[in-house]
Order: sequence, then structure tokens, then C-alpha cells
Amino acid sequence: MYRTDDDFMRLALAQAQVARAQQEVPIGAIVVWNGEVVGEGYNLRETWRDPTAHAELIAIQSASRRLGAWRLTECDLYVTLEPCPMCAGAIMLSRIRRLIYGADDPKGGAVTSKLPLLEPGLWNHAPIITSGVLGQDCANILREFFKGMRERRKNLD
Amino acid sequence: MYRTDDDFMRLALAQAQVARAQQEVPIGAIVVWNGEVVGEGYNLRETWRDPTAHAELIAIQSASRRLGAWRLTECDLYVTLEPCPMCAGAIMLSRIRRLIYGADDPKGGAVTSKLPLLEPGLWNHAPIITSGVLGQDCANILREFFKGMRERRKNLD
Repeated sequence: MYRTDDDFMRLALAQAQVARAQQEVPIGAIVVWNGEVVGEGYNLRETWRDPTAHAELIAIQSASRRLGAWRLTECDLYVTLEPCPMCAGAIMLSRIRRLIYGADDPKGGAVTSKLPLLEPGLWNHAPIITSGVLGQDCANILREFFKGMRERRKNLD
Repeated sequence: MYRTDDDFMRLALAQAQVARAQQEVPIGAIVVWNGEVVGEGYNLRETWRDPTAHAELIAIQSASRRLGAWRLTECDLYVTLEPCPMCAGAIMLSRIRRLIYGADDPKGGAVTSKLPLLEPGLWNHAPIITSGVLGQDCANILREFFKGMRERRKNLD
């Protein structure tokens, strides 16, 4: 049984691990409706050669397809990293009820770090936001991925 | 032979007309590389029941697929309406060289109207921006679509 934000974030982290296994930057997301996972996604930018293939966008598309609706007003999105402007925009457009994310993204985050793109009053819809859920785990998987990448590059020099 | 911004915007408008024929809000986009159209898209939100099915996003995905690359650094995007935050974010991520749009979107535009999301210096990449290309035509197709929709609704009352 999935119950808490931590439980659902563990499922988003599992998506990030799938990305990592494909040498993709490990970011994962799930969409939850009525206590059930109805959408999932992980970063596939390199594999798909698609600049829009972010975890959140894929999870939203997957939930919309499954629910047969573009309005995800009763859905919550869990993602391991603070969304970028594109994904924050998609969250706003899909009317996601709650956004729950793990690690902050100081360079690219469009929720609290770099821009407050989902601030209430700015658009027709603003989700309720919870940040820092399993934040250390979500940051660690990214840190270790980039560390591994730097080491592999160093060994190639 | 396509040459000018007006010529290419006419092709984006043709995409918007395809959307209109499907009762979708008529917004269209194309991606141009080396003088050739390598991506196209029109709004398909209702048909696909997908909140991310905006003209620009579909055009970028289509160009990436065709060129086999997520970096569209030598590509220009023509779109009939000022991009929303999601699409402005996708333009930034894909490193599109130039963004050319027709009509301003006072309520949702994330380029000049509501937010300057593509302002130079904000992110690693900022496209060169040209606005107002066939602006009247691009605004008219939207205005007439919404006028027709209101009239149909009135007749149903």
C-alpha cells in the first residue's frame, strides 16, 4: 500500500534508477490519482534525442493517455528534481493538484530556485507545492551520476 | 521557394488552419533548418486529450526526430502565437536559434507579454526573437475561431 509522500517519492526514485541504467541523467516522476499511479516517466533526452523528453512531461502525457483527459485536476505529480520552466509550464497547463518534488535545482529550477513560475495568481491555475521530500536521496542519485561521468571522462584522458 | 519570415509564417498559419478544421484552437508552428521545413505541428490538445500537445512542442519533437538530435542550434521556429511558459521552456531547452511569432498573447505569453522567460542571461541559451510577423492574420484566425465558438454556444441556449 502506498500512502505517504515518501512512499510515492520512492516510486519516482525508482523511475530515476531506470533512467540511470540507460545512462540518462537520473530524474524520475510519477502521477498519482486516487492513491494509484496513473502515469510515470523518466528522463529520455539522449535515447529519444528529444529535448522535451523530461520525466515530468512523459509522466503527464502518460497519465492523460491513461485517464483520457487533459485536465489532471485530481492528480498529484511526484518528481525527484525541481521542475524546469518547460515542465513547470506543463504542470500548470495540466492543472495538476499537487506538485511534490525532492531536490532543489539551483541552476534550472522554475518553482523556487530560479523563478517562481507556479506562484499563485500568476496563471489560472497554481498547484499546491511540497519540496524536499526524500531530498537527500533525490540529490544523491544525481550527484553520483555526474561524479561517475566525470571519472569515466578522466580515465579516457 | 521559401525565403522570408512572412513566407515561413504562412506555412505556420497553414498548420493553424489544419487545427481549425479539427475544431482545435488554431495555432500552428514549423521548424526551419537550412531553408527547409524539418518540423511541423498544430494544437491537438482536445484530440489527443493531452495538455502538452501544443503546436510548438509537437514541431520541436518532429524536428528532433527528423534530424536525429535534441540540439536544434541551427533551427528557427515559426509560430502563430506567442509561446506559453511550457513552449518557451522547450524552445530554450532545444537551443532553437531564432523564435519568430505572429500574435502576442496578453494572458499567457511567456516571451514579452506576461513573462520574459527567454530573456538573454537568464538561462544558458536565449534565442533571437522576432514578433509581429503576419501578426494580424495570426490574431484573426484565433479571433474568428472564438467568435464562432461563442455563436455556436449562443445558438444552443
